[in-house]
Amino acid sequence: AIDAARLLARLKELGATGRDEAGRLCRIAASDADRAGRNLLCGWLRQAGLRIEIDRIGNIYGIWEPDGVSGNPMVMGSHIDTVIDAGIYDGCYGVLSGLAVIEAMQQAGLRPSRPLTVVAFTNEEGVRYAPDMMGSLVAAGGLATDDALAIVGTDGTTLGAELHRIGYAGSREPGFLKPHAYVELHVEQGPILEAEGQPIGAVENLQGISWQKVTIGGMANHAGTTPMVMRRDAGVAAAQTLAFLDRLARDTQGAVATVGTIRFEPNAINVIPSSAIFTVDLRNPDEERLKGQEVALDTFLNGLRSEGFEVTTERLARFQPVTFAPEIVAAIEASAAERQLVCRRMTSGAGHDAQMIVRIAPAAMIFVPSKGGISHNPAEYTADADLIAGANVLLDVARKFSR
Amino acid sequence: AIDAARLLARLKELGATGRDEAGRLCRIAASDADRAGRNLLCGWLRQAGLRIEIDRIGNIYGIWEPDGVSGNPMVMGSHIDTVIDAGIYDGCYGVLSGLAVIEAMQQAGLRPSRPLTVVAFTNEEGVRYAPDMMGSLVAAGGLATDDALAIVGTDGTTLGAELHRIGYAGSREPGFLKPHAYVELHVEQGPILEAEGQPIGAVENLQGISWQKVTIGGMANHAGTTPMVMRRDAGVAAAQTLAFLDRLARDTQGAVATVGTIRFEPNAINVIPSSAIFTVDLRNPDEERLKGQEVALDTFLNGLRSEGFEVTTERLARFQPVTFAPEIVAAIEASAAERQLVCRRMTSGAGHDAQMIVRIAPAAMIFVPSKGGISHNPAEYTADADLIAGANVLLDVARKFSR
Ligand SMILES: NC(=O)NCCC(=O)O
Ligand SMILES: NC(=O)NCCC(=O)O
Repeated sequence: AIDAARLLARLKELGATGRDEAGRLCRIAASDADRAGRNLLCGWLRQAGLRIEIDRIGNIYGIWEPDGVSGNPMVMGSHIDTVIDAGIYDGCYGVLSGLAVIEAMQQAGLRPSRPLTVVAFTNEEGVRYAPDMMGSLVAAGGLATDDALAIVGTDGTTLGAELHRIGYAGSREPGFLKPHAYVELHVEQGPILEAEGQPIGAVENLQGISWQKVTIGGMANHAGTTPMVMRRDAGVAAAQTLAFLDRLARDTQGAVATVGTIRFEPNAINVIPSSAIFTVDLRNPDEERLKGQEVALDTFLNGLRSEGFEVTTERLARFQPVTFAPEIVAAIEASAAERQLVCRRMTSGAGHDAQMIVRIAPAAMIFVPSKGGISHNPAEYTADADLIAGANVLLDVARKFSR
Repeated sequence: AIDAARLLARLKELGATGRDEAGRLCRIAASDADRAGRNLLCGWLRQAGLRIEIDRIGNIYGIWEPDGVSGNPMVMGSHIDTVIDAGIYDGCYGVLSGLAVIEAMQQAGLRPSRPLTVVAFTNEEGVRYAPDMMGSLVAAGGLATDDALAIVGTDGTTLGAELHRIGYAGSREPGFLKPHAYVELHVEQGPILEAEGQPIGAVENLQGISWQKVTIGGMANHAGTTPMVMRRDAGVAAAQTLAFLDRLARDTQGAVATVGTIRFEPNAINVIPSSAIFTVDLRNPDEERLKGQEVALDTFLNGLRSEGFEVTTERLARFQPVTFAPEIVAAIEASAAERQLVCRRMTSGAGHDAQMIVRIAPAAMIFVPSKGGISHNPAEYTADADLIAGANVLLDVARKFSR
């Protein structure tokens, strides 16, 4: 079994590393805080005697390849980058549990018949550089490495330069390691497992994700002298778009919609905004419905164009819904049953690295409950017992697929 | 008559001074760009032989007090601070025309029976430090000097420290100079004079202004996993408030409403906003209707509170509508008539320093047309002929009230 105390202690230690001045966890991809987290992780990988490999997109692999063992590895992992003001579980839990599984097998003197690998993928969150799940997307061949490295972030930097700066621009070609199977353990980040009192989720699919940046151009003018009928207020047009997307998501089965970022130009109290720039995150487990949400947004924006606004959209990410490997989902269920943990099959609302890796290898995910369904928030919490249970299910599945 | 060529050349030169890296005119109060503009202005005041006085709030006075002439001065002026990405006329036109009037009288050997003064008030725009019209408000005794100097700006600085830094924290007590009368020449910044083909506006009143900062607190959560019905999305609540204010202003006689600035926290693409902070600018020439707009906003915000949002408001500025001095308005009309310039009485949609000075002295304003009604925008434009006509009307009125 997993060394529970060590797993929990490492989760806390990693969560305390690289906080900002305000004490917030902002381990944004390729930032100084990310470097601090990576350094800590690499120390633990080394302690476990793993071979560390870093690829050109900064993915970190810790490889356990006992003498005489070869072949495609059984891979576990997730990411250690975070959103702004994050919780400590999202991503880190999957990486540290993967390491804990390898250590448990070493400790028990178990000899796998293929290598085991734990991976921390770069920039899963996509907060600074879009798209999200970038490291795993590149590793799966869905985005050329050099194109990804050249992506410009919200702060004008490029991922390539920042990876170089923090010392994690590795030399291995992404994709150098072909998984035999990939299993990702993660907190649910949603309310379902808690609400239904089930400790384990066997994730059989993951919803589609559509990210766009929308820019609405209106006309700056004086807030006091410009009659309402003569305005082309980009801020009001943006507000109407937000309200529309919210209503649309409420009216569309399975849909969610979020505008997480916004900016007005020139952003002065007595100047009608000349432009409004915001991001749109649309999701749906059903590809046709997701397309429907995108079309409805386009139609709404066309309406604004016909009112005289200049509207442009930029695609930041687009991933279709995926279905995970049934044999791994079944193995998760079997492990949970053996350990007398209630388990349900479910859909993932969040994007995950497994969603990319399933393009090149059988992959699936294990979920554990998130208190109140809260994530991307410092109040994110999963009970210790649930964390340990999930890690032990990962151990069972990893043993099975490394035999 | 006014030296037209010099006035136009100075307007251009001042408008070219202190541009930002992007070439935008951002002569924000007490910034480096403001210092550059002030230095240029003071040079011209000195050239005209005026005595320069600077008060503790940074208002600059250029005083023409020929030997043996005393008493309360006839004052002309406006401001030279600007919004972000501004036009070159707003404010500067009134200050430079006041100087041109004094120079024209000096040139013509006219001897006034009371001093003439041109003033440039500090921070009329209120973009960095609220409230707007701050220098004239302090000079009129409506705000204590030390309180004004302690006001914290959008960038965390205080006006007092910044005035000191740019070398324009003067020693005179604001209000040291009591105007006999105050006349402010300004571009209309609205569409009326151009639409009606009238070159001169005699401004008889000015609408009320209500500025607030609104903070809506919701709950950060994951954009992908959080069902629509479980969200408390501060961004959507803000968007609904913007859309509501826009509709309300369209439905309320005389009303305008503007949300010029907005910010989401944590401002990440896949995080539901935990808070939205925005400014509200409400105006109406009718005090009761303006109060009605404020009450409607409060009611709307209470609705958000009852949905579980935390909502706080902060008062940034509140000015009631004012009526200008009828004898000055009549003098403006008389001058226009003599010069065969069509003139209309009108209301000002913008706030102006005259609105503050009318508390302590008879005051009124002269407007000239703004092309397309555009202001607070680099496309702000008034034809040279209109600029000259307005300055000559100012000359007539200043002569009359300095006799
Ligand atoms: N698991 C997770 O939070 N992934 C970030 C990508 C997303 O927004 O779903
Ligand atoms: N004239 C002018 O633009 N004043 C700024 C204050 C306002 O917003 O009305």
